[in-house]
This record gives sequence, C-alpha cells and structure tokens, in this order.
Amino acid sequence: MTQATIGRCNLLGLDGVPADELAALLDEADGFVAAVRSRETTDLLAGRVIANLFFEPSTRTRCSFTVAANRLGASTVDLTGLGSSLSKGETVLATALNLDAMGVDAMVVRSPRSGTPHLIADAVACPVINAGDGRHEHPTQGLLDILTLRRRWGDLTGRTIVIVGDIANSRVVRSNLHGLTTLGADVVLVGPPVLVPVSFTKITAGPGRVSIEHDLDEALLRADAVMTLRIQIERHGDDGGGAIPPDYRRRYGLTVDRAASLPKDVPIMHPGPVNRGVEIDSEVADDPNSSVIMEQVTNGVAVRMAVLRRALSP
Amino acid sequence: MTQATIGRCNLLGLDGVPADELAALLDEADGFVAAVRSRETTDLLAGRVIANLFFEPSTRTRCSFTVAANRLGASTVDLTGLGSSLSKGETVLATALNLDAMGVDAMVVRSPRSGTPHLIADAVACPVINAGDGRHEHPTQGLLDILTLRRRWGDLTGRTIVIVGDIANSRVVRSNLHGLTTLGADVVLVGPPVLVPVSFTKITAGPGRVSIEHDLDEALLRADAVMTLRIQIERHGDDGGGAIPPDYRRRYGLTVDRAASLPKDVPIMHPGPVNRGVEIDSEVADDPNSSVIMEQVTNGVAVRMAVLRRALSP
Amino acid sequence: MTQATIGRCNLLGLDGVPADELAALLDEADGFVAAVRSRETTDLLAGRVIANLFFEPSTRTRCSFTVAANRLGASTVDLTGLGSSLSKGETVLATALNLDAMGVDAMVVRSPRSGTPHLIADAVACPVINAGDGRHEHPTQGLLDILTLRRRWGDLTGRTIVIVGDIANSRVVRSNLHGLTTLGADVVLVGPPVLVPVSFTKITAGPGRVSIEHDLDEALLRADAVMTLRIQIERHGDDGGGAIPPDYRRRYGLTVDRAASLPKDVPIMHPGPVNRGVEIDSEVADDPNSSVIMEQVTNGVAVRMAVLRRALSP
Repeated sequence: MTQATIGRCNLLGLDGVPADELAALLDEADGFVAAVRSRETTDLLAGRVIANLFFEPSTRTRCSFTVAANRLGASTVDLTGLGSSLSKGETVLATALNLDAMGVDAMVVRSPRSGTPHLIADAVACPVINAGDGRHEHPTQGLLDILTLRRRWGDLTGRTIVIVGDIANSRVVRSNLHGLTTLGADVVLVGPPVLVPVSFTKITAGPGRVSIEHDLDEALLRADAVMTLRIQIERHGDDGGGAIPPDYRRRYGLTVDRAASLPKDVPIMHPGPVNRGVEIDSEVADDPNSSVIMEQVTNGVAVRMAVLRRALSP
Repeated sequence: MTQATIGRCNLLGLDGVPADELAALLDEADGFVAAVRSRETTDLLAGRVIANLFFEPSTRTRCSFTVAANRLGASTVDLTGLGSSLSKGETVLATALNLDAMGVDAMVVRSPRSGTPHLIADAVACPVINAGDGRHEHPTQGLLDILTLRRRWGDLTGRTIVIVGDIANSRVVRSNLHGLTTLGADVVLVGPPVLVPVSFTKITAGPGRVSIEHDLDEALLRADAVMTLRIQIERHGDDGGGAIPPDYRRRYGLTVDRAASLPKDVPIMHPGPVNRGVEIDSEVADDPNSSVIMEQVTNGVAVRMAVLRRALSP
Repeated sequence: MTQATIGRCNLLGLDGVPADELAALLDEADGFVAAVRSRETTDLLAGRVIANLFFEPSTRTRCSFTVAANRLGASTVDLTGLGSSLSKGETVLATALNLDAMGVDAMVVRSPRSGTPHLIADAVACPVINAGDGRHEHPTQGLLDILTLRRRWGDLTGRTIVIVGDIANSRVVRSNLHGLTTLGADVVLVGPPVLVPVSFTKITAGPGRVSIEHDLDEALLRADAVMTLRIQIERHGDDGGGAIPPDYRRRYGLTVDRAASLPKDVPIMHPGPVNRGVEIDSEVADDPNSSVIMEQVTNGVAVRMAVLRRALSP
C-alpha cells in the first residue's frame, strides 16, 4: 500500500477566489490542454476514487469529470438518478456522509438546489467540487470559459465580454462574473429586462466592471468576446414569466447577420447544450474561424483535471 | 500478460461458516479499516473485473462494493435496473451465465428473491458474493456489524446484542444471527409479535443463544449493544398485516429518553438507511459518543475488500 | 506522462473488409481467447478511455465491450439511456462531437438507426466502433460468430452455414453474410418468405454464395453449422406484417427432433438473447456437445479486445 496524503481543497464557487489562486489553477489547467488533445494519460491520481454525486441529470458534465479523473489514473463511482427519491436536504446529506465514510477521495456534486455542495462540504471530510448548484454557481464552467479566453489573449485586463441570454437563471454567468472581474475583464450582460436582473451588476470583484445593455447590437460594438446562453426553461417558474419572447431570436439571437458584423478575431462561446436557431444560428455555432465551442469542451476536461489534482494533492 | 490464479470462493451467507473462517475474514477486514480511513490504495486485485449484478436497486451497497473493488485496484461493470425485464428465474440465470462466459472475475449479486445468488453460484465458474437476497441473507452486512463490535470488544463471547425492529423481513438479522451466535454472542430480538416470528430463535449456531422479548425497555437492561432496524415496508405483503403500528416509536423506537437510560459504552447501530423519528431519533443516530452508524459504513468497505480479496485469490 | 500514438481505425461494418484484414483481426482475437477464459489481464491499453455511446439499450453488448476494455487496462465511460431525449440526428452528432472534444480514445456506438456510427465517424477524430446500428450491421457479432467457426474448422472455404429466423430484421445476418462469403463459406438463409427478402442473396463478397431455402429440414441436410435467430419483434412495423406465424416453431424452430437429425459435429449457434421454445428448444440451446452459444459469448470479448486494440494502436 502506498500512503496517501489527504488534503482538503474544495471548489464550491469562484466567488471570493483571489486572482493569484485563479491564475495558479488556470496555469495548471493550461498545462493539461495539450494532454487532453493528444489523449495522453498520467498516473497523478492513480488509485483514487472520485464519486459523481448527481442529484440532477447531466451527461456532459459527468462525462467531462469522468474523463478528467480517468486521464489522471483515478476511477469513478457514479450516483445518478437520485433526483426523485432524494428531495429532502436531510437525505442528500445522509448520502454524502455515507460516501464520505466509505472513504471516497472526493465528491463531485451537482444539485438543482443552490447551496447543496456547501451543505455537504460542511459535513464531510473529503474535498467537494461543485458541478453546478441551482442558479448559484458552476465554477468549473466559469474556469473553462476563462481558460479559453486566457489562452487566446494571455491577459484579460481591460477586455470586454458580452454575455447574452437568460442571465437570471444562469449559474454559469455568476461564476463567470466572479472570475472575469477578478482577473480585470469587464462584462456586459444583455437580454430582455425580465431575464437580466439589475442586481447582477453588483456581482463584481473588481477591478472588472459589470454593466447591463438591452440592445445586443449596441453591446456587440464593444465586444472582445461574445458568450451566448440558452434559455433555461427548466428553471423558470410555472407562471411563464420567463418564457422565450416571440421575437427573441431577432432581438437577442446571435444570427448569421449579427456575427458577420463582428471583427474576425472575436471568439464566440456557448456553454452548451446549444438551441440552434434560437440563441445562436447553426452557421455561427459551427463556424471554424470564430466559434470556440468545441475548444471550450476540451478545455473543460483540462480544467477538471487541474481542479481534481489540486483537491487531492494540494 | 500476467497469469491469474483462478480460485473459487463464494460468500452466499454466514449460515454454516465456522468460527475460525469468520475470524480469518474479520482479521483481514480489520487490517483494511485503516486503509479505508486514510484513503490508501493497493494493487492486490489489479486488472480484475468485478460485475455488480443488481436485480434490486441499492445505491449504498453497490457503491460500497465498487469502492472496495477500486481500492484493491480492480474495475467494476454494473448491471443494474434489471428488475423489471428480468422477472423470470431463467433469465436471471442466462444473464449470469453470459457474464461468466465473458470472463468476469467475480459477481456481486443482489436480488429481491431469496436463493438467487445460490442458483447462480451453482451454474457459473466464477465466485459469487451475495449482496442481499430477498428476506434470506446479507452476509457482508452481517460481517460489518460483527467487525464493528469485535473492534470495540475484542471478543464477542458472552456479550448480548439487542436487535429491535422488523425482524421478520430482515436479511440483515438472519446473517447477524448466524455470525453472532457462532462467535459466542447472545441475541435478543425485540419488536411487536407480528414482526418477530418465534422461528427466529432457532437460527443459532451455538454457543450463542437467541431469545425474543417484546418489551424494549426490559431488553435494554441486558444490552451490550443495540441494533435498530427500519420497517421494510417494501417487503410486506399487500394485506398491510405488517404495517407500522401507530404507537411504534413509543414502544419500539430508540428515543432520546431510552438512549439516555443506556450505559455510555453501549454502541448504537443501524444498517441504514435510517428512518429518523421512527425506529430511532435523530439525536440518537447522530450522537458522536454512542452511535457507530458511520463506523459501520467504513467497516463495510473493509469487509467487502476482504471478501473480494478472499474470493479472487484464496 | 506517456505520449500516446493516436491512430484512426474504425470498424463500421464487415462490408468491404478484405479477406486478409478479416484474417488478421481474427488471428489477434484468437490469441485473446485463452486470456478471456483464464481471466488474464494486460496493460496494452492502459490509461485509455473508451466511451460506450448507446442510443439503444443493450446490457450484453455493453458489458462485453466493457470487460474487453478492462481486460486491456482501459477504462470506460457509459452514455446510456439516451434514446428518448436524443431522437434527432443533430443531437446525436452533438453528443458525439462533445465526447470527441473531451478526448476520449474511442467510441463504441449503438443506435436504433442504420448509419448512425458512420455519421459520427465522419464527424469525429477518434475511432468509432459500430456496436449495432438499426437493421444494418453488427460487425463484432459477425466476427465472433466467424471466430467460433474458424476455431473449430481452421478454414471456412466450402463450408455451408444455415441461418434460420428473422433474416429481414437482422443486422447480425448482414455482418455474417459479408464476412462469411469473403472467407469462402456458403450461406443458406431460411425462414418464412416474409422474413427472408430475396435481396439478401445479393449480399455476398464472393467466393462464398448465398441462397434462400424455405424448408428448414431440406436446408439442414447441407448444414456444416446452424445459426438460429430470434424474431426481432421490436423492429417490426405496427402493421404486424412480421408477427410470428402460429406454426413458427414447428416449421422453423430448432427442435429437439430436428437437432437429433444433425450430425454430431454440427455446431449450433445463437447470438442471444434466446427465446427458448420458439426459435430453439431449451435442450438444444443447452446441449454441451453441440451448442456453442456460451463459446460465442467468450469469443465476443476476445473479438472486442482485438477490435479495440487495433482501433487504438494500429
């Protein structure tokens, strides 16, 4: 048996993570990108067991964490399909405490409820990684978006990222706001007023600034990068208050015409899955010159490798 | 390629397992407890493939076997969600025979029907481990309960374990009765008459004795350890004959008041999942001084490591 | 990190695969059979990640590929239960492109639609293995059938294989026809006219010939091997045009009486799962002297090991 060093290094959100810690994490992830691309493998986490504790279905994020774990030599145990039977917070905790007592090395937690990973992290001994909690945060998605931009620009200071879509219901936006502003980028949030709460301008860690713009074409004039988001129908209430307006694509979709008006070097991003023809046209999403959507997916594995490595051997 | 020694060492139940074999298994499991706690890993079963053949859902037991396999360097293949399509015994066997022909190294079998693991073990070449069959046995749960007590007391001879709850429908009780009495402990079964069949007093392998008591407070006066069980509603018939009596908690629940009457060194056990406020109060289940419920979970991985190791390289 | 050589070697079907390539693949698979039987393990694909992308449920084939991957030291990530949410071809492709961008080493694809693995292979960088697509091909099943016969006979030239059952809806038959005729065997297709389209006689790669016979007893006079197929009720249309005729077993079932009329050395095959008492009697399927059904299952893991090895290090 080889003695394992047990560390404790959660990643629950990007809120409050200082710039130097973000940079260190991004540096390590950057080093893994080539490995993901060339399908290289390591034994940095050989023998470790990572639990995927998913209270909300997510094929993509689970696969990305699993591939990241496997590339590091770790194995995974999946607890999925737990949504219906585990509606009470108490039972969620009991499941996590059991896994912790079984000696898993880390837990990757996804939940439809904001705060679940924090609740679990307070109770267990092993590190906890937030894979998306309600409308709160999705820190590894934020990191992979930032890594994608940093690899292109080197430095984010003074850059302007336009994020357009369902801001109100997006945990991806919250994580991006914390991370981007910490690293000095400005963010312009765009969408119909009902989907862009004024309170989001307060989610800033300076030096970057956050502003709201309801006219997409106006916002695009300032864009160094554009991130489109899908409408999170499943997180809207039953009153239909957040339903897609009939002219959504015309006003807020990244159409072929709008994309053509952008300078060639403005990257177009989307966290997926894409609703083609709604928030973004297929031709734009698939444009090999400007779309970096697939690059985001590759960088996602690299980011999760770095986050797992850091969590297990800090 | 490394040549693998193919052994054959089932674990279908604790019925008939002699004291020295139990002791050897518990000794080995005891040696793994520290490894589970400190998240150590081994390559004792590197390259081996364990099939989890679950005809009844069980997140906890499947995870515990998976973590145990991974900690030994083995990989797992899950066959779950088979309940509905595999209602006929014939098809259960066909699935097991196919897996065996594929060359899996061992099968971990859970089934809602008593005897399924035995049926499979008679037909296949690889070792079969019973992970719970109907109301019959759940030997690794029995072993982990016994390991938990043995680690506390060293020797079980002359100790009295009070088991309270749904005795009639519990495979955990049957495995515990065989193992505990073989090792010299006495067991007192407690619960309403409808849930405590007189026939259970015959499940003894001497030297330990089994008795029935319907008054929990009376039984607790003799208890060296208390094991509470949940009501297995899902194994009761449709006639409701086994439904929870309205005053169940008052008469058979391990309430805060009852637990306070116990000597401080009496461990309180539960195989999980816990129905808080029914068979046990939350404060009792979570009491760090007397509850050993989480310790049981940890010991469960150690026991399964020992059982898998023994099955694959006897 | 160890540098991985990225090759590209799909297996989408046996149609068009020349005899020498088939022979090389079968030679390698043959070498793995002993390893599967004795549960040996290798590290030929250590660190590799294989994705099982199953748009149609299949416990057996998924397990066989998983065991094959694990025996080679590779790990697997399962994407199953995708059928309902992924009905559009576009989304199937999006899922595959995402997996590819995550850097999986190979994809094993099963789909209810013919051509899906080809569509995916055209779009992704990693190798794609067809694990069954609609009524089109199931090449690893074809290879394992051929391997089973080749291990018995050495050479297939001039041998006659009788395939009886639901020819029209069988992807297994198509793969077998391509492979068997390429290697010089003749095939006689048997079944009621509605289930045996005349067009199937054109699926031949010479030198082997394909013919149709509606009288099973007549066909069996020429048989060197007999392969029975189940009726693929799930692939028949709603008009019931392909329902099992009431006298199916009497006319096309491999009954005890019919099997008794065969020479002792004629192997009896079935790709599974078996409908006992319909296309084959239980006594015939389980006859240790003539049935090679379990041998087919073992050879299936060996074939998949060879296919994965070839795909990942050509």
